[in-house]
Amino acid sequence: MERKELLYTGKAKKMYATDQENVLWAEYLNQATALNGVKKDTIEGKGRLNNQITGRIFEYLAEKGIASHYIQELSETEQSVKRVNMFPLEVVVRNVSAGSFAKRFGMEEGIDLPFPVLEFYYKDDALNDPFINDAHVQVLGAATDEEVAEIKKQALKINAALIEMFKAIGIRLIDFKIEFGKTAEGEIILADEISPDTCRLWDIETNEHLDKDIYRRDLGDLIPVYVEVLDRLNKM
Amino acid sequence: MERKELLYTGKAKKMYATDQENVLWAEYLNQATALNGVKKDTIEGKGRLNNQITGRIFEYLAEKGIASHYIQELSETEQSVKRVNMFPLEVVVRNVSAGSFAKRFGMEEGIDLPFPVLEFYYKDDALNDPFINDAHVQVLGAATDEEVAEIKKQALKINAALIEMFKAIGIRLIDFKIEFGKTAEGEIILADEISPDTCRLWDIETNEHLDKDIYRRDLGDLIPVYVEVLDRLNKM
Ligand SMILES: Nc1ncnc2c1ncn2[C@@H]1O[C@H](COP(=O)(O)OP(=O)(O)O)[C@@H](O)[C@H]1O
Ligand SMILES: Nc1ncnc2c1ncn2[C@@H]1O[C@H](COP(=O)(O)OP(=O)(O)O)[C@@H](O)[C@H]1O
Ligand SMILES: [Mg+2]
Ligand SMILES: [Mg+2]
Repeated sequence: MERKELLYTGKAKKMYATDQENVLWAEYLNQATALNGVKKDTIEGKGRLNNQITGRIFEYLAEKGIASHYIQELSETEQSVKRVNMFPLEVVVRNVSAGSFAKRFGMEEGIDLPFPVLEFYYKDDALNDPFINDAHVQVLGAATDEEVAEIKKQALKINAALIEMFKAIGIRLIDFKIEFGKTAEGEIILADEISPDTCRLWDIETNEHLDKDIYRRDLGDLIPVYVEVLDRLNKM
Repeated sequence: MERKELLYTGKAKKMYATDQENVLWAEYLNQATALNGVKKDTIEGKGRLNNQITGRIFEYLAEKGIASHYIQELSETEQSVKRVNMFPLEVVVRNVSAGSFAKRFGMEEGIDLPFPVLEFYYKDDALNDPFINDAHVQVLGAATDEEVAEIKKQALKINAALIEMFKAIGIRLIDFKIEFGKTAEGEIILADEISPDTCRLWDIETNEHLDKDIYRRDLGDLIPVYVEVLDRLNKM
């Protein structure tokens, strides 16, 4: 397969066309951003780690019968994926209070929620990815009612699979963000990435952060922590 | 009926018990607040106007078959209402972009929405009444799924009736906030108030603000505008 023109440079990845109409070439970058782009750094090795972690996780999900855009690893920092029409939505699934959820409700972090809580954010950098409700999704034309129902169903299934997977490697899945897209055939599938950039992962024993909060909150060096996550996934 | 002990002093009303178990005595105050209480003033005559406007509107809704807590006017500034267990929710219905909605989506104010958009806010002063989604309503235990469905149904019915009512008096109903409660018998009904404090009302011809935005945005004197709304309602 041949890499063709650059289609999009995002905050974490570059997306290229390929010689195959429905296949994209994703390159994971060494860039870290937080606070909607206010904080920004280059972190050597991050692209490689997220590319490989995402690959391992999408492979695991495929084994569990959950389709995603992932095709295969192309290099340490690159993977091929099915081209989809992205829904401009960030779908957040929360199992435990943390981050903006804890803040919104004046709650401590680390409290188990009675059931997984789904949130939608409208993916729009200029608007700072605002939190929205289902009516807003409709008004924005971001997805139809039926698509929202399907996205929610898949998000909960993905959550159940990920909880189990992370538990097996000593990690508590606090929350995560995923994105969905629609294939040329009209199938809604999980796309983008699942990595410590997009999840809150706490060590089950120590409650240590194994995710981007290390960077967001200036808690230390991100790389050894991401290496730890990849190592545990590889030992699974 | 006799007024008994003060139960609650809110930002706009005092609520008293009465000698009847299931009846409360609401006194509308001359207090105006905005920006979650940061801005606060006494405005002579406001309590009288909101008490009477709310009374007229609840009477109108009753004629249209929409139940509310409203019983009757007790004085210029007071009314009796059915005591309910309030849901800790502010239910916002939007017909036209304005306020926080316009800001959230980087939209101009005054744009007709393709359908009425409902939003829930969690009524909690200490948290600044955060915007929440349906999953949050469940997690907070603010209302059950069935109660939410009933509240949404009633909110849309109330919206349709209010659009028609305001249109008849030359007013465009941009958006409004309502609250619901549950009676001793388990019936969900509209409670609290509907007034220019809780609605955005624009003159159909001139787009002039006939609501609390006059105060929020320092656009001039609030009283003549509220008098105008009451006068139009009384002429209906
Ligand atoms: N399979 C796919 N097809 C098309 N676009 C995708 C696919 N997977 C992810 N994307 C999009 O590509 C971009 C990935 O780059 P990223 O650095 O995460 O961007 P952003 O800063 O917009 O989040 C995102 O906009 C994401 O929505
Ligand atoms: N019928 C009712 N029964 C019990 N409580 C009510 C009823 N109607 C309104 N309330 C509550 O009484 C208070 C009214 O006072 P208000 O000044 O609006 O208070 P707030 O500052 O809390 O909004 C609100 O908390 C409202 O939820
Ligand atoms: Mg991204
Ligand atoms: Mg109030």
